[in-house]
Amino acid sequence: MSEQERDHYWMSQALALAKTAQFRTRPNPAVGCVIVKDQHIVGRGSTAPVGGPHAEVFALREAGVQAQNATAYVTLEPCSHYGRTPPCANALIEAGVSRVVIATLDPNPLVAGKGQTMLNQAGITTQVGVLEEQAQELNRGFLKVMAGGLPYVRLKVASSLDGRTAMASGESKWITGVDARLDVQYWRARSGAIITGVDTVLADDCQLNVRALPDVDDLSEIVQPKRIILDRQGRLPLTAKLLQHPETVVVMGPFRQELADLGVVQFPVLPLQQLLEHIAKEHHIYDVMIEAGATLSTAFLQEDLVDEVISYVAPTLLGCSARAMFNAELDKMAQQLRFELIDLTQLGQDIRLRLVPIQETV
Amino acid sequence: MSEQERDHYWMSQALALAKTAQFRTRPNPAVGCVIVKDQHIVGRGSTAPVGGPHAEVFALREAGVQAQNATAYVTLEPCSHYGRTPPCANALIEAGVSRVVIATLDPNPLVAGKGQTMLNQAGITTQVGVLEEQAQELNRGFLKVMAGGLPYVRLKVASSLDGRTAMASGESKWITGVDARLDVQYWRARSGAIITGVDTVLADDCQLNVRALPDVDDLSEIVQPKRIILDRQGRLPLTAKLLQHPETVVVMGPFRQELADLGVVQFPVLPLQQLLEHIAKEHHIYDVMIEAGATLSTAFLQEDLVDEVISYVAPTLLGCSARAMFNAELDKMAQQLRFELIDLTQLGQDIRLRLVPIQETV
Repeated sequence: MSEQERDHYWMSQALALAKTAQFRTRPNPAVGCVIVKDQHIVGRGSTAPVGGPHAEVFALREAGVQAQNATAYVTLEPCSHYGRTPPCANALIEAGVSRVVIATLDPNPLVAGKGQTMLNQAGITTQVGVLEEQAQELNRGFLKVMAGGLPYVRLKVASSLDGRTAMASGESKWITGVDARLDVQYWRARSGAIITGVDTVLADDCQLNVRALPDVDDLSEIVQPKRIILDRQGRLPLTAKLLQHPETVVVMGPFRQELADLGVVQFPVLPLQQLLEHIAKEHHIYDVMIEAGATLSTAFLQEDLVDEVISYVAPTLLGCSARAMFNAELDKMAQQLRFELIDLTQLGQDIRLRLVPIQETV
Repeated sequence: MSEQERDHYWMSQALALAKTAQFRTRPNPAVGCVIVKDQHIVGRGSTAPVGGPHAEVFALREAGVQAQNATAYVTLEPCSHYGRTPPCANALIEAGVSRVVIATLDPNPLVAGKGQTMLNQAGITTQVGVLEEQAQELNRGFLKVMAGGLPYVRLKVASSLDGRTAMASGESKWITGVDARLDVQYWRARSGAIITGVDTVLADDCQLNVRALPDVDDLSEIVQPKRIILDRQGRLPLTAKLLQHPETVVVMGPFRQELADLGVVQFPVLPLQQLLEHIAKEHHIYDVMIEAGATLSTAFLQEDLVDEVISYVAPTLLGCSARAMFNAELDKMAQQLRFELIDLTQLGQDIRLRLVPIQETV
């Protein structure tokens, strides 16, 4: 194996550790770290839930004195600032590692290359960009917000082959099968919040929480997504099922004392882009999934606020009086919303397309 | 290798030969044959164009005296009757083969196990059912019609993710990309006829012929599908592009002398099922592809006349005023038309689903 192949191999081990931490560390990014000496792992770690140690600290603890002159592989640039925990770059320097391999830099302005610089100034060799794409995929929203952007927005839609999401009456149980519905749980678990409209709550009395995850036995270990209800007219009923866990409900709408009494966080009506800015800044929500009806979904799409569409298509035809998945009235092919297909997966009898909007060149 | 593995191996060689003949033998089925002696192929053949020899004849010719005590692998039961050519079962007997392995029996009532019986009566061992599914897939329509059924009907549809086939104006160039459009050519080449409505001809001036095939350099070698135009009011313009080759145009509609003068075959208006029966019986059309607008496609689907839907979906949204792919007005989920997904393939940025209707249990 060349040094490059070895670096890939050890970084893939660090990424596997980072994945074990996902769903549990929000709003912190999920990070993995391995310390390698003489071609053996002597320490490993992944981010603890908020307030707990970062991945590097666990790995250095396990390595002990063997960290001296070892190489550390971290999936995200080590932090250089005092936050809830002391800076990890310091810890690596003090432990005496001689080389640090970093999958991706942290665009957080408090870090932003400073972690790497600190290491270099201490005489430690650094290398950046090993398995960068995979590392970025794990923490899309965190990286996007830290780089000064909006949250990473996924829009979920489940439709028939003829693009319908429900019969005219609203009947929609079930268009997609169990495998597709279980997959939705995974994407919810990756989200800091689910956004929906109050009409969806009124129609389906949905909970929009995570109730099953393939690799997680104890769901109490994961951070449940917030459920953000857009309710311009204050119509959310106090009997709604999702208010059984009011601590994860956030309502955008006119202030209602009875919701405040339940402990529900509320904020006044904002345009969609400002809504996204608000929840990133005030609630540290970096990954959003929209699970809403056609009107709200179409609005997010048309305002160019969607980073990725997760489209489940069931092998069925519901007919032309059933509800359309996309409500815009377009006249010409030139107005179409086109996407790049980044992933195609069969889930039972359904399929899942992951699509990234193609930005028009102006 | 066990004998079973050897049989699979040699039959797969016969299937490969059968595939080289497809597109060229209609209305005859495409068949392949290899003669194997002492674990070597001593003869190979595939069906010649109509009127020419069958696969077994070519294979026996090549094998010569080596056919004695050899095993013949044929993808379809050897014929036992005098048609355009003498019976192949006789030829195998006369050549002295000792064993015949058959992928699938021929449901043609003129054959229907009689080929196998003739061989057995001559003291030849036979075995049926090796790679049967693949052999049947090659000649779906032939097998269905010979078993007493209607032609095998494929319905092609190309739509956006939201189930639209064109803008309200009819503009639709192009929803799908080149790879998907090339794939359509393959399915056309597998069809004895393309059925469309005159409105599609009026809107697109389409030709519905085969203009490119990945593995065929000289398209004059293939049998072009008939183009069957459903034209209840006699509106097909004489300037239509597809009338540049009138010999492959068939029109269902009121008799028009000017079409007859061009050499176009015509027949009077029939209900859809009788139309399919008619073209099978009178024109030996066993595989049909429907490439039509929503009204005609929906009618074929709702009358349970479709065996397979070939659905191309492009990663784009065209909006709710664009044309729906499926025109039925259904009220309840119980009325949905559900399908089994038998194949999912990505073609460039588009996807292709092959779907088989799920018959309702009565």
